[in-house]
Amino acid sequence: MLRVLLAAGLAMFVVGNANAADAAAGKAKAGTCAGCHGANGISASPAWPNLAGQKEAYLAKQLKDFKSGARKDPVMAGMAAALSDEDIANLAAYYASLGQ
Amino acid sequence: MLRVLLAAGLAMFVVGNANAADAAAGKAKAGTCAGCHGANGISASPAWPNLAGQKEAYLAKQLKDFKSGARKDPVMAGMAAALSDEDIANLAAYYASLGQ
Repeated sequence: MLRVLLAAGLAMFVVGNANAADAAAGKAKAGTCAGCHGANGISASPAWPNLAGQKEAYLAKQLKDFKSGARKDPVMAGMAAALSDEDIANLAAYYASLGQ
Repeated sequence: MLRVLLAAGLAMFVVGNANAADAAAGKAKAGTCAGCHGANGISASPAWPNLAGQKEAYLAKQLKDFKSGARKDPVMAGMAAALSDEDIANLAAYYASLGQ
């Protein structure tokens, strides 16, 4: 019985982690973003939004919407086209983790 | 000559102020926004963006885009439809002025 519970716990741990966003991996992918949104997620121009401390689910949705075309921006469409769902989750986790 | 310079300066002052965004007026208009984006611009749900400390020009553009339909969101379309250009400028100034 204990062995079954341990196995079930391990399985949940593995599945949970497989879906968890990885802020460190997001940081590694954020080099291109930094050109406009700043090295710490504070944008260089008033025309571009700060990303530091923004809500993770909101950031992920915007990247998905730029990729699908639901939200339109010529620059962001090109940026988001190159991102996998995992990249998007990791980038959102990274920017949400930054203080403003 | 001095009188001409003074008149020109006064004219620039008046024109400048007529276009300046009014954060206090924005705060007075922000009651509806607070329902989702929080009383201090920090949203209650991960699905909605924080607005506190966001770039003023970016905020104003998003409200204009929601109003025109260039950016699509059923809730924000309704919110933005009721806003004048002056309201938009004031709301953007207000949220940009808040710390996060």
